[in-house]
Amino acid sequence: MNIIDIINKTKHGKELNDAEIEALVRGFTNGEIPDYQMSAWLMAVCLNGLTDDETAILTYAMRDTGKVMDLSCIGGTTIDKHSTGGVGDKTSLIIGPIAAACGVYVPKMSGRGLGHTGGTIDKLESINGYNTQLALDKFLEVVSETGFSIISQSEMLCPADKLIYSLRNATGTVDSIPLICSSIMSKKLAMNCDCILLDVKYGSGAFMKTYEDACRLGELMERTGKAVGKKCRAIVTDMNIPLGKNIGNALEVREAVDVLSGQCRGSLYDLCIGLSADMLELAGKGTNADCIRMAENAIASGKALSILERTIELHGGDSRICRDTSLLPQPRYSYNVRAAHNMKIISINSEEIGMTSLLLGAGRISKEDKIDMSAGIVMNCECGQIVGEGETIMTLCSSVCSDFTESARRALNAVKFVKIL
Amino acid sequence: MNIIDIINKTKHGKELNDAEIEALVRGFTNGEIPDYQMSAWLMAVCLNGLTDDETAILTYAMRDTGKVMDLSCIGGTTIDKHSTGGVGDKTSLIIGPIAAACGVYVPKMSGRGLGHTGGTIDKLESINGYNTQLALDKFLEVVSETGFSIISQSEMLCPADKLIYSLRNATGTVDSIPLICSSIMSKKLAMNCDCILLDVKYGSGAFMKTYEDACRLGELMERTGKAVGKKCRAIVTDMNIPLGKNIGNALEVREAVDVLSGQCRGSLYDLCIGLSADMLELAGKGTNADCIRMAENAIASGKALSILERTIELHGGDSRICRDTSLLPQPRYSYNVRAAHNMKIISINSEEIGMTSLLLGAGRISKEDKIDMSAGIVMNCECGQIVGEGETIMTLCSSVCSDFTESARRALNAVKFVKIL
Repeated sequence: MNIIDIINKTKHGKELNDAEIEALVRGFTNGEIPDYQMSAWLMAVCLNGLTDDETAILTYAMRDTGKVMDLSCIGGTTIDKHSTGGVGDKTSLIIGPIAAACGVYVPKMSGRGLGHTGGTIDKLESINGYNTQLALDKFLEVVSETGFSIISQSEMLCPADKLIYSLRNATGTVDSIPLICSSIMSKKLAMNCDCILLDVKYGSGAFMKTYEDACRLGELMERTGKAVGKKCRAIVTDMNIPLGKNIGNALEVREAVDVLSGQCRGSLYDLCIGLSADMLELAGKGTNADCIRMAENAIASGKALSILERTIELHGGDSRICRDTSLLPQPRYSYNVRAAHNMKIISINSEEIGMTSLLLGAGRISKEDKIDMSAGIVMNCECGQIVGEGETIMTLCSSVCSDFTESARRALNAVKFVKIL
Repeated sequence: MNIIDIINKTKHGKELNDAEIEALVRGFTNGEIPDYQMSAWLMAVCLNGLTDDETAILTYAMRDTGKVMDLSCIGGTTIDKHSTGGVGDKTSLIIGPIAAACGVYVPKMSGRGLGHTGGTIDKLESINGYNTQLALDKFLEVVSETGFSIISQSEMLCPADKLIYSLRNATGTVDSIPLICSSIMSKKLAMNCDCILLDVKYGSGAFMKTYEDACRLGELMERTGKAVGKKCRAIVTDMNIPLGKNIGNALEVREAVDVLSGQCRGSLYDLCIGLSADMLELAGKGTNADCIRMAENAIASGKALSILERTIELHGGDSRICRDTSLLPQPRYSYNVRAAHNMKIISINSEEIGMTSLLLGAGRISKEDKIDMSAGIVMNCECGQIVGEGETIMTLCSSVCSDFTESARRALNAVKFVKIL
């Protein structure tokens, strides 16, 4: 197996066979194939694509570079959920407890955020004491007891993915649907749940900018999961506007608690009920209508919130935040962005809102950056809403940045409106 | 200037500006841009191409990473000649002395061979004592005296090219016309002759497999040279069959001496007279017909051979080989490949003949391989010729390999013929 022959095949649009793809992934992971050869291949993939079969083989080869979880100790149906991420996406913190309250098990590994999209692990770490790095046996114990746990992506799973992702990030080879599919699905298949729900977001705040690309990615991931016996469903959701009202780590945990405690209704609540129902249906818990009722009940009964509370406790975190969100990190400074005149909000660009949040300290530009857990944005308006002159459109929060000139300018830029006389 | 933005522009088919290309070449040459980013960019170039303007800027940026020669000490018109290489291509050893005999100056740097194409430097090193690594001032002294010298490509010229070429060789990014152009022309422009003749070969034994690609490369190189004031002409020649009768280092020097001494007429003689006339015409020595007569005279008078003889002497080599080619390295073993029946030769695949020659020890598979100077092939037939049963089609020579089973099989495979009853 010659690596240059492999590169040339993809470069010339010829299909690689199983042995070639496996040799490539294995060779790169164990250091025999240098970065510069892998990055040339990755660029050829970006420009020429891979067939669906190649993508599947790549995914399985990446999965097999590390441990594949044995979830047999969990006495029920397991389900994993993945969102391709976006601005203000705290759904994992809400639908995990809902699904667990309805009798399925949700063992989940998540990542940290980079750029304007937040990571679930960062959000959880805004809870004082929460340990995102439980040992795998302890993690499975938590899942067995509460039905739900989220830890940081384990280094023992899919080492190939981490290596390939870093290289893609440094070589302009991130935006390739087959490469995104193999990155996500190799980790999901190593987690090894019975069911996998894939929430593929599109729009200005998401990886996939168009609906068509999101559908293509969703179909490819579904196919790759189903081919190895997983119950797998991909849904495509809009990320052109931010998800919910709060953007930023502690702010998003607060909003998740608000939804689970039944205090916050609206589009985020609806989305989470819908996603939870999809998970439950996929796990065989009934018709979609049944599952929607079960999910609503999980919130109304307080059971989902109790599960989040107990899970935080088992992770060593301050679970009192589930009853009193003021115990979460609070910003030292805040600033109300107000309407200069009467206006009707037309759209909110979530990518720009994400960049503003990054500017306030809520995200990382490079991997080593420290996050301000209290920083972020609280939106006081929705699309279509009319805001009167002097009313607050959104509140900017930060503990590291007290000068809001630039962030307020950027935040206002994200909002499209028409003046009302 | 962000390298990822540069990679992304080429990946998305957008044109880079001068500053971006210069930053890329400079950054890579001084080690700031790592191999893996450069190789991703090179692959994007292979698949998306570069515009002619980008190619020219890349060429000049590569030239400017090293020394540009000052040839003002040479009291006459200087001309450089480049062949894209092929099997049995010893034309530089013949036309350099012819052109020098006609009053132009030919200072030339050449490379070593890799794979089935031989390098002029390897051929010269088959002459006992010939120093291919003269200091640059000494090199110019030789050119001033004899009109002709060939040394090994200097490390002081175009360091970027050496680095980029190694990376291309290891990443399947060799076969890109803009990259081939920039590699060749950056070195030619650093050599800085008044005129440049480019012999672009196409066919099975050459880099460019088709006539169309060879024309495209030739035009691009011409344009890149003319834009900086060089007299530049590209000609496209057929490399589907080997050039001349001898393939292999010492064997090719012998054939060159045979042509220069007037003992060997035929297609190689004709090609060399034509190329020499093109050089002389480009240097302003007269009409093409005049230049052909001058070139023929240079051989008939013995002046060209004397120039080769004196040049070899000034390089410390055994110049007696110009009068007695038996002083060149002789093979320890040889084997005649004979016709199994009466046949008419239809074609000779020069790539296969090159691979056979490699197998006999005349070339390198990897850069570190040692060459057997005596090894190679002497063709006893030409296309269209009729060979009788038992007659020798070609002779295989080697000092390192005495078992000719595999090489004879491969050599015969290269010859297409029809049986004659």
